[in-house]
Amino acid sequence: MDNLARRNWDQQLGYDSLTPIASIHKRVAKWKELTGRDITLYLGDICDFEFLAEAWKQFEPEHVVHFGEQRSAPYSMLDRERAVYTQVNNVSGTINILYAMKEFTPDCHMVKLGTMGEYGTPNIDIEEGYLDITHNGRTDTLPYPKQGNSFYHLSKIHDSTNMIFCAKTWGLKVTDLNQGVVYGVKTPETSLDETLINRLDYDSIFGTALNRFVIQAAVGHPITVYGKGGQTRGFLDIRDTVRCIQLAIDNPAEQGKMRVMNQFTELFSVNELASLVKDAGAKLDLDVQVTSVPNPRIEAEEHYYNAKNSKLKDLGLEPHLLGDAILDSLLQVAVEYKDRCDHQLILPANAWGSSGVSRHFVGEKAKST
Amino acid sequence: MDNLARRNWDQQLGYDSLTPIASIHKRVAKWKELTGRDITLYLGDICDFEFLAEAWKQFEPEHVVHFGEQRSAPYSMLDRERAVYTQVNNVSGTINILYAMKEFTPDCHMVKLGTMGEYGTPNIDIEEGYLDITHNGRTDTLPYPKQGNSFYHLSKIHDSTNMIFCAKTWGLKVTDLNQGVVYGVKTPETSLDETLINRLDYDSIFGTALNRFVIQAAVGHPITVYGKGGQTRGFLDIRDTVRCIQLAIDNPAEQGKMRVMNQFTELFSVNELASLVKDAGAKLDLDVQVTSVPNPRIEAEEHYYNAKNSKLKDLGLEPHLLGDAILDSLLQVAVEYKDRCDHQLILPANAWGSSGVSRHFVGEKAKST
Repeated sequence: MDNLARRNWDQQLGYDSLTPIASIHKRVAKWKELTGRDITLYLGDICDFEFLAEAWKQFEPEHVVHFGEQRSAPYSMLDRERAVYTQVNNVSGTINILYAMKEFTPDCHMVKLGTMGEYGTPNIDIEEGYLDITHNGRTDTLPYPKQGNSFYHLSKIHDSTNMIFCAKTWGLKVTDLNQGVVYGVKTPETSLDETLINRLDYDSIFGTALNRFVIQAAVGHPITVYGKGGQTRGFLDIRDTVRCIQLAIDNPAEQGKMRVMNQFTELFSVNELASLVKDAGAKLDLDVQVTSVPNPRIEAEEHYYNAKNSKLKDLGLEPHLLGDAILDSLLQVAVEYKDRCDHQLILPANAWGSSGVSRHFVGEKAKST
Repeated sequence: MDNLARRNWDQQLGYDSLTPIASIHKRVAKWKELTGRDITLYLGDICDFEFLAEAWKQFEPEHVVHFGEQRSAPYSMLDRERAVYTQVNNVSGTINILYAMKEFTPDCHMVKLGTMGEYGTPNIDIEEGYLDITHNGRTDTLPYPKQGNSFYHLSKIHDSTNMIFCAKTWGLKVTDLNQGVVYGVKTPETSLDETLINRLDYDSIFGTALNRFVIQAAVGHPITVYGKGGQTRGFLDIRDTVRCIQLAIDNPAEQGKMRVMNQFTELFSVNELASLVKDAGAKLDLDVQVTSVPNPRIEAEEHYYNAKNSKLKDLGLEPHLLGDAILDSLLQVAVEYKDRCDHQLILPANAWGSSGVSRHFVGEKAKST
């Protein structure tokens, strides 16, 4: 099920993936041509329950992989309208899926994409979803205290809080994958044909740290580190994100208690990533500069960060670690498509502090700020 | 600001307050007649930002007391549509207010009505909003881990999570009052004239434990304890809830960190309340029976419960404790209006487990289930 909202946001903002993205119809047809396999496509919005229910009852899923959310923190911070849209869209869509599971397919297992950003940057170790707490001599295992840093991250916290309740109250099977920042663009499947290539976003709204840095290096733009660059997060290779979903499906959650797994393989600070890209660029004779720009986000730029990620490894994940091979491959893709890059889109666009009630109209004016 | 939604839900469900509620226009006019004071009334929906912004800019509030939410747990569990409505309405309205504060009146202080139900029933002491946690040798003060037990309670958790972020990111002044179950009906102000009387709800959707029990006693219906009756919660007198809001306004929160105060004065189990009402009824020669009915909620019926409530007392709250005087007064009000009682509305209507995707239509059929 897809409402193609992601493509529409690019249209609204005047953005485009560095890699060319074919229509969903062409992608599905190419996959069929190459593999003989059908992907049944329902075009519509999961916030529209009439649509969701019809598709659900036709398909009767045994597992549902739920990625159907507005997933950009900067987009959620553009203005009030988009803040409300992000939370309403994400929370309503997830509630609709929970009701569809309960009513139509009570044995269905949901694999929901959460984010490591739900945890924020606490001064204690980050566990996988729950925390054993001893307080005044008594003990309980409680949901890990969450602190989101954008309306988007907050929407994912809301989802998780709702899913814990529904799993417990209705006996549903729910897995929450708290994913780190994904890098890379190719998987074995998408490499079969250019029609199947993944998005590679370098703009300030949808681009994420490592991918953006690589493209900046490829097009000769200084790598833009936000603030001090001590911000540390969990990262993973795009091939591992696909593998993690398969592992979650092969080993479904039990009924009644939401399972949470932290889905990342390594921790890096922004400065470490910039340094890795600079070194990889040097090998391709690219003179990569690193510069600090004012941080549009309001966040800790130096902080403790230690997050656990053993559950997916226990299920069999063998991580692709960030090394020369993936950096070289990413740089090659970026160089291959660098003529498609619009340099005006590289700089940070919207600051958390300037999110306001006036709509953020995008056009030449906004692009040049 | 009021969209009069509460009155509309009664119309939809066929419910009515035991006490007769005058139109908002008559209430405001009566208050003016009795006290000479004006209440400026803006009729509209805070989810409609155009309305909210116009009213806000006209009034320029120094404090905003935000009660504008769907506040019934059973209502939120009637069906999918009302679950989504509750969360979208509550979360969007609160985000709109936060943006109005930031943009139009950055020094404005928000007093937001939360609920003790955000904490659930953890096996450790409940603190006021935050918890000092030591884990693997490191320490942090984090938002208290929340576990809601209905889509309504969850919506309040979402609000709190959003408000922490906005207070921190935009330097807003925000107080979150986690209120317990309110009992009583009269305050000195509403006692001035019957036109000003408060609601007294005894139906299964909007009625709360003690008030419902008193009305059951007054009309000769057995007191309906849900399940084992060991469910323990914080309670407070309606006069104290008004006083707490005044105390929060007189001592506003500081900029940048959301203040949380637990707003209740005493803890009671459902069985304790039933027993108190039975004893009070005996003094009025009422033969009060207590009966256990199947619990429509899915919740722990025997559990540890110890919640802190020192912050409002530190600000000067002198609690009206639950004693003979308030029980007698409540029983007298209930007896006075008992002819208005519709006995069909007393029994539990909707079970958490039966909340579904089909709309919960209400009429003769639903009333008799």
